Amino acid sequence: MTARNIAFDPPGPRAAVEEGQAFTPRFDRDGLITCIAVDARDGRVLMLAHMNAESLARTLETGEAWYWSRSRGELWHKGATSGQIQRLVEMRVDCDQDALLIRVEVGGDGGCCHTGRRDCFYRAVVRQPDGRAALEFAGI
Amino acid sequence: MTARNIAFDPPGPRAAVEEGQAFTPRFDRDGLITCIAVDARDGRVLMLAHMNAESLARTLETGEAWYWSRSRGELWHKGATSGQIQRLVEMRVDCDQDALLIRVEVGGDGGCCHTGRRDCFYRAVVRQPDGRAALEFAGI
Repeated sequence: MTARNIAFDPPGPRAAVEEGQAFTPRFDRDGLITCIAVDARDGRVLMLAHMNAESLARTLETGEAWYWSRSRGELWHKGATSGQIQRLVEMRVDCDQDALLIRVEVGGDGGCCHTGRRDCFYRAVVRQPDGRAALEFAGI
Repeated sequence: MTARNIAFDPPGPRAAVEEGQAFTPRFDRDGLITCIAVDARDGRVLMLAHMNAESLARTLETGEAWYWSRSRGELWHKGATSGQIQRLVEMRVDCDQDALLIRVEVGGDGGCCHTGRRDCFYRAVVRQPDGRAALEFAGI
């Protein structure tokens, strides 16, 4: 599949970026933009991942979340193997257009994290008596 | 103020990173880690920003969010001038420890975005009849 129909213009002046209606996503020097995925049911933050222009275009065209896997160096159709498809309910962009927020309905078992948990943020950072920080597994 | 009490060890093997209790944040090549801030009251995503080791340490030590401003190239005590202090309720880290999620109580007028809005994600990305994507201002 080729994303043919959506091209992204480069960012304009700051006022246009922040208060305009042109979608000019600001990709970083690796060609990526950060994307937060939250569950449309309850707003819970599920994961943070990255999109390049191609995955962003595919997400908008197909209505399902596509990311760029930095570890594998390839396009990543979320849920293609696990069934945990993320159906796009809404996409938002932040003030300076360098971050995306998507609200999704999750397919399959409703989970998201490759460790088998519902979301990726399953550990809390807690300061210990000696002042150092350690992790505690947090409840669902 | 110097963050003296918290040092961060480098990431270990994958199993330790994902299932262990050692906090080993994975900073990128600019020394930054991405942080999502959500309102502790209702879980609403407020903003996405970045922390370096110093701002992360200060956040844990002071219980208030400190970021690294990439645009200004300096430590950024959120709310120091606006009053929109973000008091840390909980910090979480994701599976591969390259993203943080903080739940915060917001001071001042309860807002977050420098544009004056409560959060930074005030525009939705919407496909137009011609297939291109444009922005629509979304309701609060």
